[in-house]
Amino acid sequence: MSKYAIGIDFGTLSARALLVNVVTGEELASAVFNYPHGVMDEKLPCGKKLGHDWALQHPQDYLDALTSTIPEALSISGVDASDVIGVGIDFTSCTVLPTLKDGTPLCFLEEFREEPHAYVKLWKHHAAQSYANRLNEIAAKRGEEWLDYYGGKISSEWEIPKLWQILEEAPEVYEKTDRFVEAADWVVWQLCGKESRNSCCAGYKGIWNKRKGFPQKDFFKALNPKLEYVIEDKFYNRISPLGDKAGEITPEMAAKTGLKAGTAVAVAIIDAHVFVPAVGITTPGKMLAILGTSTCHMLLGEEEKKVKGMCGVVEDGILPGLFAYEAGQCCVGDHFQWFIENCLPKSYFEQAALKGMNIHKFLREKVQNQKAGESGLIALDWWNGNRSVLVDVDLTGMLIGMTLQTKPEEIYRALIEATAYGTRIIIETFREYGVYVDGFYAAGGISQKDPMTMQIYADVIKMPVKVAGSEQAGALGAAIYGSVAAGKANGGYDDLFEAAGRLGKVKDKVYYPNEENSRVYDKLFNEYKILHDYFGRGENDVMKRLKSIKKELSV
Amino acid sequence: MSKYAIGIDFGTLSARALLVNVVTGEELASAVFNYPHGVMDEKLPCGKKLGHDWALQHPQDYLDALTSTIPEALSISGVDASDVIGVGIDFTSCTVLPTLKDGTPLCFLEEFREEPHAYVKLWKHHAAQSYANRLNEIAAKRGEEWLDYYGGKISSEWEIPKLWQILEEAPEVYEKTDRFVEAADWVVWQLCGKESRNSCCAGYKGIWNKRKGFPQKDFFKALNPKLEYVIEDKFYNRISPLGDKAGEITPEMAAKTGLKAGTAVAVAIIDAHVFVPAVGITTPGKMLAILGTSTCHMLLGEEEKKVKGMCGVVEDGILPGLFAYEAGQCCVGDHFQWFIENCLPKSYFEQAALKGMNIHKFLREKVQNQKAGESGLIALDWWNGNRSVLVDVDLTGMLIGMTLQTKPEEIYRALIEATAYGTRIIIETFREYGVYVDGFYAAGGISQKDPMTMQIYADVIKMPVKVAGSEQAGALGAAIYGSVAAGKANGGYDDLFEAAGRLGKVKDKVYYPNEENSRVYDKLFNEYKILHDYFGRGENDVMKRLKSIKKELSV
Repeated sequence: MSKYAIGIDFGTLSARALLVNVVTGEELASAVFNYPHGVMDEKLPCGKKLGHDWALQHPQDYLDALTSTIPEALSISGVDASDVIGVGIDFTSCTVLPTLKDGTPLCFLEEFREEPHAYVKLWKHHAAQSYANRLNEIAAKRGEEWLDYYGGKISSEWEIPKLWQILEEAPEVYEKTDRFVEAADWVVWQLCGKESRNSCCAGYKGIWNKRKGFPQKDFFKALNPKLEYVIEDKFYNRISPLGDKAGEITPEMAAKTGLKAGTAVAVAIIDAHVFVPAVGITTPGKMLAILGTSTCHMLLGEEEKKVKGMCGVVEDGILPGLFAYEAGQCCVGDHFQWFIENCLPKSYFEQAALKGMNIHKFLREKVQNQKAGESGLIALDWWNGNRSVLVDVDLTGMLIGMTLQTKPEEIYRALIEATAYGTRIIIETFREYGVYVDGFYAAGGISQKDPMTMQIYADVIKMPVKVAGSEQAGALGAAIYGSVAAGKANGGYDDLFEAAGRLGKVKDKVYYPNEENSRVYDKLFNEYKILHDYFGRGENDVMKRLKSIKKELSV
Repeated sequence: MSKYAIGIDFGTLSARALLVNVVTGEELASAVFNYPHGVMDEKLPCGKKLGHDWALQHPQDYLDALTSTIPEALSISGVDASDVIGVGIDFTSCTVLPTLKDGTPLCFLEEFREEPHAYVKLWKHHAAQSYANRLNEIAAKRGEEWLDYYGGKISSEWEIPKLWQILEEAPEVYEKTDRFVEAADWVVWQLCGKESRNSCCAGYKGIWNKRKGFPQKDFFKALNPKLEYVIEDKFYNRISPLGDKAGEITPEMAAKTGLKAGTAVAVAIIDAHVFVPAVGITTPGKMLAILGTSTCHMLLGEEEKKVKGMCGVVEDGILPGLFAYEAGQCCVGDHFQWFIENCLPKSYFEQAALKGMNIHKFLREKVQNQKAGESGLIALDWWNGNRSVLVDVDLTGMLIGMTLQTKPEEIYRALIEATAYGTRIIIETFREYGVYVDGFYAAGGISQKDPMTMQIYADVIKMPVKVAGSEQAGALGAAIYGSVAAGKANGGYDDLFEAAGRLGKVKDKVYYPNEENSRVYDKLFNEYKILHDYFGRGENDVMKRLKSIKKELSV
C-alpha cells in the first residue's frame, strides 16, 4: 500500500500544496490558492493607509489556503486521507505576526482591526530599516559575537527590528502581544494545536544559536529598556531541529482539510532552505542557488566558520547535525526584468510578438550563440545593492564596454554574466574561509526556463550545474519533511537524509562547463573582480557619493 | 545698392547654398542639393564591392551641387547676379581625391571607373587605419616635433594615410595622380579655373605648418621610399591663409551657375571651422563647440602651445594672424541616437506618438526638470572612443549608479551630462596648458533644438552658453569668407574680422549657469574626472582588455 505526504509551500502571493508518493516520489496532485488580500502595501482592508516601505499580509489567507489546497489536492489525486501520513510546511521568512497566548492573531481582535502593526509583517516589509540600523550599530559597538555569523549585519527584514518597530510605534500592540511568531510556525500551530519553533527561522532570522541561544538581556536592554525580557515575554523558546515532528492534525483541522486527525505535522522551514533536500543534497560542499528575483545560496558544512559577507550560518538550519550556510545576491531576476521594462527597444517587442515568443526567450535566441567575451561588456550586478559578500545596500549598478555597435541583447547577456560572476565571488569567498564547495545545483524559475543562463553559470563557475527535478521543488521539500515527521513505522522515514536521498531529485540534463568559454570567463571574471573590489571595497566610493548627493536633493 | 555673397556648405550627404546681404546680414534664400551618389560605403556605381570601413563619394555630385544650388538661390532671392560680389566654400574634411594636373578626377577616366581608389575618399573613410597606425609609430620613433601639435597622434582620416593607402593598394592610381587634393580646394579650383590650397585643411589634415611647412622628406621616405617626394609630386604647395581670394568665377562656370564671370571666390575652409566667424568670434578665448553626431571645439589663441590631447593647432587656421586650436569629442549625437535606437522601451515610443512628439523632445520633457545629481548616474561618454584629451579609440562607454528605480530618461540625461563633463575636461586642459577660455558658444543641430542640453552645458562648464544665430551657420560662415574675397572696393570687406563682426551672429537667448545645479555638477564632475583618469589613463585598462578579448574571438 502506497503512502503519501503533503507539502505546502507558502509563497508571497499564493500557497501551493503538493501530494507526493513517499516511496516512488511521484507527484500526484497539486493545488494553488491565491491570497485574497495579497500583499497589503498601500492600505489595510478597512482602508487605512500604510506608510512607505510597508508590506503586510492577512493571516486569514493562510488558513484559507490550508482549507482550500489540501482538500483539492486530495480530491485530484484520489488518494485516501488515511494514506496521507505527514504534512510539511515551508514559508517565506521572516514573515511574522503578533498573537495572543492561544495563537489568535492580534489583527483578529476588534480593537486592533484598524491597527497596521497588528497584522502580519511580510518578509519584504522594509519600514523597520531605521531599527535595523540602530540595532547593528549598537551590536557592533558592544562587540556582539553573533554579528559575525550573519556577515556583520542583520537585515531590517528580521524578527527583532520588526518587533522593535511595533514597540516604538504601537506600544499598545506590543503590550498585548503574547507571542511574536513566524507565520511558518503559526501555520503549524494552527494545524496541530500546539506550539513549535523551527531552527531554520530562529537561526536565520531570530538571532538564535543552537549552542548559545539568543543574545543576552543586556543587549536587548541597550536597544530599549523595555526589550530587556523580550525573549522570555514574547517568544516561545523551545526550538526544534528540522526533521522533527511538531504535532498532529487536530480534529478541528481534520474536519476542515479532509486529512485524518493525528496525521503527523513537521516542524516548518523557510521556503528557500527547503530546496536543499528537494534536490537531494544531503552532504557538505554542494551549493544550491535558488534563482528568482534575487538569489539565495545554501551550502552545508561540517564546521562553523565566520565567512565574510554571508547571510548566516545555522546549526541544524536545514539538516540536523550540519551547519547550513546562506549567502545571497540582491538582484537577479529583478535585474533582467528592469532591463526588459526600461531598456528594450520597441522593435524587439514587435519582432518577438510576430514570432509569438516570450521576450526573454526572444532575447536569448539572439544572443545565446555568442561566445564569452564577444560583446566586450562587463556589468556589476548591484542594481539593488550587494548582499554577499560586500553587504552594502548603497552600491549601485555599473556597465562598461559599450560602443555604438552594442546591441540590447548583449547588455542583457552581460547582466546575466554579472550575476554568474557574483555567484563565483561567493563560491570563492566560501573556499577562502575554509568552507569547501565542490558541486553546484540550481533551482527556481530561471533554472527551469533558461538554459542559456544555466550554461553561462556552468562556464563561469567551472562546475557542472544540476537543476531541480521538480517544477514544485519547494512543496516537494516540505513533503519530504512531512514524510520524516510521520516516521518509518507509519510508512515514512526516520531519517531526513534517507528521505531526501530518495525523494529529492534533479533533472537528467546537466550543464557542463564549456572549456573554451571557461577560459575566456576566467579572464572576464578577473576584470569583474578588479571592478568589484575597486567600487565595492572603498577604493572609489563613487556609488555611495552619488547616492548621498541624490539623497541630499530629496530632503 | 545692396551687395550679396553666397556661401556653399558641402556636408556629408548634401550641399546647401545661402545667399546673404553683406551689409545687413539678412539671409535671403537657400537651396539644398542631395548628392545622388550619397556616401558609397558598400559598392561603386558600377557595382564593384567596397571593403570594410570604406566611404567614398563621387565628385560629379559636387559639380552638380554648384550648378543646382547657386541658380536656385539666385532665383528664389530675386537678386541680380551682378550684385553677388563673392562666393565662399566650406567642405567636410579630410575629404580628398586624386586628379590629373588639370583637375580631372581620376575616377572620371574610363580606365579607373571601376577602381575604388580613384574616387573621393570621404572624411569618414576609415580603411586607412593601419597606415595611420604605422605613420604614428614611425613619427613617434623619429621624434617628429609636429606630432605634438596634433595631440600626439594623427588620424586615419587625414591626407597622408589616405594617400599612402592608394600607393600600397593601387600603385597605378598613385602613379597617375598629379594632385591629391581636398574636395574643398577642388571645388574652388573648378569654380575659378586655378589652383589654391587653404591653410585650414592643410594645417589640420595635411600636417602643414605655416612656419615649418610639411614634414621632411626623410620622414616620408621612412614610411615608404616611394613617398620621399610626395609633397613635391602630388601636392600643390602654395597655401593661402583664410580670407584670401582664390580666384574668380570662370566664364564657363558663370554660364553654368548664373553668376557673373569674375565674381570673387574665397579660399575654402573646413565645414566645422567656418562656424567661428559665423557666430561672430574674432578674438581669443572664446570656445565654439559644434554639437552634431560628434563635437568639434574651436578656440583662438595668440600663441602656439602644445596642448595635450587636442586635435591640432594651426596658425591662420581660421582667422589670419591667430592660432586656431581644435579639440573633439567622438560621440555626442551618435551616443544619444544609439540610446534611442537600442535602449528605449516600447511604451515611450507609444506615449510620444500619442502626443505627436519627437522622441528626443519627449524624453527631454520627462527629465528636464530633474535637478543635477537627482538620478545618481554618471556615464563616461566613450561609446566611440575618446578624442580629446585622451586620444584613444579603444576606450568604451561606461555607466554607473543604476538601481531598479532608474528610468530610461535618466540614463538619457546622464549621457548628455557625460558629454558636458567631457567638454569641461577639454576646457580645463586648455587652461592647464596656458590657453585661456573665457566664453562658450554652441552651434550645430543640438544647439538649435535642445535647450535642456544647452542649459546642462552652461551649468557644468559654469559659463554662459551663446548659440549660433543662423540655422545655416555653416553656409553663412562661407558667405562671410566670400564677402572678404570680394573686398571693400566691390561692396564687401577687406578685413575678415570686420566681416565676421558684422555678419556673424548669435541668438538673443543665452543660457546662464544655474548656481545651484553648478554646485552639484562640480561634485559630479569631480567623480567623472576620477573615473575618466582611472579608466582612461592606464590605472585600469579593462576597456582595452575587453576589446582585445573581443578581437581575439573575431579572428
